[in-house]
Amino acid sequence: MIIVVGATGFIGQAFVRHLCVRNEEHVAVSRRYLDYYDPDRLSQLILDVPADFLINAAGFAGQPNVDACEDEKHECLYANSVLPGRIGQACERSGIPWGHVSSGCIYAGTNRGRGFQETDLPNFTFRSNHCSFYSGTKALGEEVLAGNRECYVWRGRMPFNHVSHPKNLLTKLLSYERLLDVRNSLSHLDEFIMACLDCWKLRLPFGIYHVTNSGSVQTSEVAAMLQSTIAPMRTFQFFEDEDEFMRVAARAPRSSCVLDNSKAIAAGLRLTDVRDAIATSLRDWTA
Amino acid sequence: MIIVVGATGFIGQAFVRHLCVRNEEHVAVSRRYLDYYDPDRLSQLILDVPADFLINAAGFAGQPNVDACEDEKHECLYANSVLPGRIGQACERSGIPWGHVSSGCIYAGTNRGRGFQETDLPNFTFRSNHCSFYSGTKALGEEVLAGNRECYVWRGRMPFNHVSHPKNLLTKLLSYERLLDVRNSLSHLDEFIMACLDCWKLRLPFGIYHVTNSGSVQTSEVAAMLQSTIAPMRTFQFFEDEDEFMRVAARAPRSSCVLDNSKAIAAGLRLTDVRDAIATSLRDWTA
Repeated sequence: MIIVVGATGFIGQAFVRHLCVRNEEHVAVSRRYLDYYDPDRLSQLILDVPADFLINAAGFAGQPNVDACEDEKHECLYANSVLPGRIGQACERSGIPWGHVSSGCIYAGTNRGRGFQETDLPNFTFRSNHCSFYSGTKALGEEVLAGNRECYVWRGRMPFNHVSHPKNLLTKLLSYERLLDVRNSLSHLDEFIMACLDCWKLRLPFGIYHVTNSGSVQTSEVAAMLQSTIAPMRTFQFFEDEDEFMRVAARAPRSSCVLDNSKAIAAGLRLTDVRDAIATSLRDWTA
Repeated sequence: MIIVVGATGFIGQAFVRHLCVRNEEHVAVSRRYLDYYDPDRLSQLILDVPADFLINAAGFAGQPNVDACEDEKHECLYANSVLPGRIGQACERSGIPWGHVSSGCIYAGTNRGRGFQETDLPNFTFRSNHCSFYSGTKALGEEVLAGNRECYVWRGRMPFNHVSHPKNLLTKLLSYERLLDVRNSLSHLDEFIMACLDCWKLRLPFGIYHVTNSGSVQTSEVAAMLQSTIAPMRTFQFFEDEDEFMRVAARAPRSSCVLDNSKAIAAGLRLTDVRDAIATSLRDWTA
């Protein structure tokens, strides 16, 4: 039996959906019904269910975007940095393994074109300076977990799939007046969820996994794909550069980064080429 | 009426003691009796009392020292970074000013002999790298408060006075096998408390204050003062340097720093010379 914490969020809902499809018994927990920040209550739930695995899909990413985290710093810290520690404590005490939905946003850059591996030190964090508050708290959340032995840390990047949603990257790109043309790895939402669930199903070794599609794309490429498929009438404007973007549109610097998913691929997780995943999503687009 | 949050800690107890001496009406709140992490409950308390000022003396500094924070990262974050945000929220909502006990430990070094002023950017933080987890969380706590208008931020350093206590720097120095010979500003506990209370009593402008005694001392000077007064039989051993200290005795790097208290002095706060304060404490020493 699997417990999903943060089950009402965008990622949490997707986990629940896939567990239903897979016919896997699970308990979806939202904060309204159980204070999962309290390790005692969470331990009790694990015992009551009884659960043999837990997924933490709770987090604070800001509404409508990470800029909002700059205004709600302490809640952002609470959800992204304190909560993983609390959940780790409850799971360790209960003796069950678990998985934490982290983020690739703790990196910036392409790592000289090679992409960042799981063993590369995050470089878009409080410790490496000038990150967004959001990225800083996600990195601290991982730091808090460093001692946890039976824990998967799943790093995804800007989820998208074929269903329009305010948190879907493709929907976001359609909604922005102007875009920042940067290179990124991305995570197809459903592939991400299935890969995370497969970590546990396949009993992969615990640790960090870059759960992103293979390869990387420029925002302008994705815009061209949108234009040639679902948004033929749409023209996309771009910022001159990151400086103009920061001056005009953003408060917190954004992480643009390329992750190397070869560890996940070698472990048997199914993650398709990022362009294929985008093309399929656009083919099946549901507004 | 003043509310003291975290009233059972070393600093909190000292606030309560001085409020009693000053005959100032106050309510001492410990977490056991009120969940002051909950802004709703805290707002209600502020209303019920009714309070016109609040002091946050709660914090997580590790037992027996800051190394313990490396093992309890999420609780350290919760107390030092999230809580100030929550209290700020409750006080702002209730329309009362408040004071936050922060720490000078977010600096390292002497600032080229001049000492750090309140306007100097902290340099021993997550953002400036290689700090202790404790210092990182204290600095984040201040960052969380950046938008709070009616708030004093009191930065103290390694409190001491004439009463032996595990948290009293002089007691600590007597108990350690070997010492690290570094230069520091220090805060006489009772002068610190009185200066903090005077900020509000004198209605000083809100903002950051370095509430430390004037000047700075080397650990070896304090050791010599101990030896020539209350510990004549004691010989003090020193680490070769910070590298040996880190290798042999510590897990987290320590902040050694000199703060410039001239803003506090100019504002009328009474903070004596650090050597005088140590001498008086040793003269009146109570084991």
